[in-house]
Amino acid sequence: MNLLQAIDDPSALRRLPRAQLEPLARELRQFLLESVARTGGHLSSNLGTVELTIALHYVFDTPRDRIVWDVGHQSYGHKVLTGRRERMGSLRQQGGLSGFPRRSESVYDTFGTAHSSTSISAALGMAQAARLCGEDRHAVAVIGDGAMSAGLAYEAMNNAGIAGDLRLLVILNDNEMSISPAVGALSRYLARLLSSHAVAAAKQAGQAVLPEPVLEVARRLEEHAKGMVLPAATLFEHFGFDYVGPIDGHDLDALVPTLENLRARTGPQFLHIITKKGRGYKLAEAEPTRYHGTGKFDHALGLTAPAPAAGKPSYTEVFGDWLCDMAAADPRLVGITPAMREGSGLVRFEQLYPERYFDVGIAEQHAVTFAGGLAAEGMKPVVAIYSTFLQRAYDQLIHDVALQDLDVTFAIDRAGLVGADGATHAGNYDIAYLRCVPNMVLMAASDENECRRMLSTAYRHPGPAAVRFPRGTGPGVAVEETLEEIAFGRGEIRHEGRGTAILAFGSMLAPSLAAGRTLGATVANMRFIKPLDGELVLRLARTHARLVTVEEGCLMGGAGAAVAEALAAAGVVKPLLMLGLPDIFVQHGDPAALLAAAGLDADGIAAAIRRRFPDEQGRRVANDS
Amino acid sequence: MNLLQAIDDPSALRRLPRAQLEPLARELRQFLLESVARTGGHLSSNLGTVELTIALHYVFDTPRDRIVWDVGHQSYGHKVLTGRRERMGSLRQQGGLSGFPRRSESVYDTFGTAHSSTSISAALGMAQAARLCGEDRHAVAVIGDGAMSAGLAYEAMNNAGIAGDLRLLVILNDNEMSISPAVGALSRYLARLLSSHAVAAAKQAGQAVLPEPVLEVARRLEEHAKGMVLPAATLFEHFGFDYVGPIDGHDLDALVPTLENLRARTGPQFLHIITKKGRGYKLAEAEPTRYHGTGKFDHALGLTAPAPAAGKPSYTEVFGDWLCDMAAADPRLVGITPAMREGSGLVRFEQLYPERYFDVGIAEQHAVTFAGGLAAEGMKPVVAIYSTFLQRAYDQLIHDVALQDLDVTFAIDRAGLVGADGATHAGNYDIAYLRCVPNMVLMAASDENECRRMLSTAYRHPGPAAVRFPRGTGPGVAVEETLEEIAFGRGEIRHEGRGTAILAFGSMLAPSLAAGRTLGATVANMRFIKPLDGELVLRLARTHARLVTVEEGCLMGGAGAAVAEALAAAGVVKPLLMLGLPDIFVQHGDPAALLAAAGLDADGIAAAIRRRFPDEQGRRVANDS
Repeated sequence: MNLLQAIDDPSALRRLPRAQLEPLARELRQFLLESVARTGGHLSSNLGTVELTIALHYVFDTPRDRIVWDVGHQSYGHKVLTGRRERMGSLRQQGGLSGFPRRSESVYDTFGTAHSSTSISAALGMAQAARLCGEDRHAVAVIGDGAMSAGLAYEAMNNAGIAGDLRLLVILNDNEMSISPAVGALSRYLARLLSSHAVAAAKQAGQAVLPEPVLEVARRLEEHAKGMVLPAATLFEHFGFDYVGPIDGHDLDALVPTLENLRARTGPQFLHIITKKGRGYKLAEAEPTRYHGTGKFDHALGLTAPAPAAGKPSYTEVFGDWLCDMAAADPRLVGITPAMREGSGLVRFEQLYPERYFDVGIAEQHAVTFAGGLAAEGMKPVVAIYSTFLQRAYDQLIHDVALQDLDVTFAIDRAGLVGADGATHAGNYDIAYLRCVPNMVLMAASDENECRRMLSTAYRHPGPAAVRFPRGTGPGVAVEETLEEIAFGRGEIRHEGRGTAILAFGSMLAPSLAAGRTLGATVANMRFIKPLDGELVLRLARTHARLVTVEEGCLMGGAGAAVAEALAAAGVVKPLLMLGLPDIFVQHGDPAALLAAAGLDADGIAAAIRRRFPDEQGRRVANDS
Repeated sequence: MNLLQAIDDPSALRRLPRAQLEPLARELRQFLLESVARTGGHLSSNLGTVELTIALHYVFDTPRDRIVWDVGHQSYGHKVLTGRRERMGSLRQQGGLSGFPRRSESVYDTFGTAHSSTSISAALGMAQAARLCGEDRHAVAVIGDGAMSAGLAYEAMNNAGIAGDLRLLVILNDNEMSISPAVGALSRYLARLLSSHAVAAAKQAGQAVLPEPVLEVARRLEEHAKGMVLPAATLFEHFGFDYVGPIDGHDLDALVPTLENLRARTGPQFLHIITKKGRGYKLAEAEPTRYHGTGKFDHALGLTAPAPAAGKPSYTEVFGDWLCDMAAADPRLVGITPAMREGSGLVRFEQLYPERYFDVGIAEQHAVTFAGGLAAEGMKPVVAIYSTFLQRAYDQLIHDVALQDLDVTFAIDRAGLVGADGATHAGNYDIAYLRCVPNMVLMAASDENECRRMLSTAYRHPGPAAVRFPRGTGPGVAVEETLEEIAFGRGEIRHEGRGTAILAFGSMLAPSLAAGRTLGATVANMRFIKPLDGELVLRLARTHARLVTVEEGCLMGGAGAAVAEALAAAGVVKPLLMLGLPDIFVQHGDPAALLAAAGLDADGIAAAIRRRFPDEQGRRVANDS
């Protein structure tokens, strides 16, 4: 690590002779492997961009020139080279480095990313700003082929291509080389492009910039592409970009001169590079998806076999099992995922029902409107999506589904705090942004079995309905095989007490029950956020001196607000305490610690109630003991 | 109108001999012109699709085959031919026909549209449903070239192109033929495509399917396109579609056989037709934008000159003037619109500051992330957008702007009820969906001058800030030339009363003041929804027996909920009545009548307060009189 240790800043990198970049790449790769093995995090994508990261900081005058890392989970090397090497051990931990670029973390992090496909829009904005200010700095967007399937990337390309005098470079980091499963025309197109160029290059000895393994893939693709029309101009040229590539993104002798060349040009430039996810770590190369995001592991051994099922399935698994069972019971069911087969628990569903499985790529908007089209024909689409990514299909949910009262089921995973991924992935807002939409039904699952029954309830409801459930595991309630529903629009009393009634939503039931038992309070499992069980709210208001709402979601406009609205609508005046997530972007950290910090564990809930109602609770506890 | 009057259903159309389609088209065009002149509505787009509408219903077996009209403002001819001819006089009026396709209105309206670019996703869903059910029906999406610039359309194309055995037809209705202003690479590409095909066709005598005027445009384009690489395969072929075109979309002898041919094929088909907006009505052909949407007019005379300025500018004009004035004061200001230059009042800004004006096309997501990129570089972007369209950029607002606390100003037009455009365009939700986002500032303007000062306030606030203002005109308060701000986070008392305090937000101040005077109630102009003026709320709670909130937005999670949250947070228990828009999709109609129906005029507000607090108000009024 002799070279790497001397680089506290990209200017040090730029003082290295070209010949030392390759040894530096070896050191950086080794460093990243050891570092991620120690902290957990994204591995495959970072090993795949080692050379690109070095070449970019070597050729461009960072931070004056701007680099925007799309998605940003490939920015670890960038962090190491920009003064954060020694802090990599704190990655994704509370108070430590973020797993994504963050403007507040470094001047080299020009634009925070995490959700995909934002980089071209942001870089275009930066390039236009430079032009307006008469500065000749460059803006570079690094985007993967998967991220190119999202409409936002297309909208940005469409705009960038006509801006003639900008210093804008888009680098397509093409690391899928996928023939099958091709989730979209673009990936098939890239495969053809690679094939045709590779073959042309191979025919001209000495000009082949692609290494043997890539050529081998290219030959396979060539077979596949037989009979297809090869383009005279690439798709990217149609969009007004100068297209260069494809080149080997692991070959510094190709990357550096090409980037130098591109840096000398003006107008929108497009560089297509081919990289391999997990590059240089055989285990990750062989299983890039498995090594995409990892926990801590021994890099000499690799990931060990997953621990035998602990008897406590994750909510994602509960959903995946339910989907298969419901699909067996109802041939109208179709499952839709925006590129989250593994994350959303759809692997088995795809195997069992390939015809009814739709991975639409990173295209949340299309996922929802496409579901609307299916529902309009009497199919029963289930959209599996993370809370944070449903934000990307908000208008489609309102305008294409809810407005037409179409029968689409939304399985909203990762609702609430998400832990290590941090603020960008927070599922804090879905209650507020869904509750205001007419025709929507929204439930929050408090345990695994209830989650399953809520999914059946949402599915059978003849209109748009959503079930939100948290990341990871729940309290461990055994999951029945039933496809039975729960009573529509009804909550339930889970603990009888006096004085105080705690109205718990979803994941907050368990800590609320604990708090309620401590305080002698009544605890209700509200189940439905919309329609809220107004009857239960009013009954609890009549029979208790005060109400407390608890939810793992933003307080503003959340389920507590729904209770306040119900009381106001009925003209009931009652002391009300609302507990939930504060109005801040909660940063990354340990999920349990973050919940505790927000006061949403049992102790926090009890303490908040005692603080607000000191006399009453004192008396209550005294009475009970 | 002999032919048209006999068609109550497309099956009657399909019984006509081919030779009668052209006279029918003439009748339909005349009918549409007279009908729109009588009711107001969209004219240019409907005159441009007369032949396409006839040809589609003639060739396809509707309603068994599905037609999805993108945006849907070109569906009047479709309505006339599908049994709604006699109801066209009720268009866009309360209880009458919608200005857009609506599933509840007719079995021929297969998918409700209004927001752009949804049709390919929906039709793809329908085609997949047909395939899964083993039915051989077709799904046809009709989409304009403007709508093709949105990412949603691209996401759908990307997915459709790989679905080999579908019966899916996408018809690109290309009616811009724009060289300048080209807002995107796609429109430039289409111009090149048209040019190259037209010239090739012209060289082959007898094969030219384009009429002389189109050829003339094509020749001009050819000049413009000199030196450009002409594609061997079209963009649409890259996406896996069979491409046919371009053909003249007004020539039934080209349209009908081409559609018959395409109907016989399987796999995704793409037909490119060229039409002229306003076709057949010289005034609209000459000024298609002016005749895009009209009020009632005399079709023999055409639109008369707009009435001389009534001294009462619309909120849109207030915004447009402010933007120009602030741009003069601050060179960092840039203005961004997603294809709404006229609607958002940016015409003069573009003329004065062409360098700082960005029309990004129908691409709301990109508009917001692009603004984020500009703000990251110290520019001061102002995004002018309708409330309903901001829903399309929700994740970009959260993830790319608010999370990074970037200094972007949002001017949210058409907030609240919109009248004739109906539920699809309702600006009812922005308070709820923006209030839950950390770092956001949100104001609601109660009059024209306050709107201007709020815009200055939002602009100077060093983070994301939005001002919402309603469609049309306000109470008519004179607008000062100042760029002065209002006090940040502060409301104001506008009428001193006793007993009841009415907390009015934005447009609801005027009717609340009237109601408050009637009832002897205090009336506050809250101004800020976020940060809410909690101090004022608590002061009013201390000094009054009851609080009433009034907003032109959905009740669920709205400004009233914010007040309830503030009271709960402070432990204040107080009778609270929340007035706002009900939890339904409000259909089209007269804006004032719709507000009255929701109880949001002065009488409705007073009546609701009396209903809720009968004794107290009786006494109050008695005391005051």
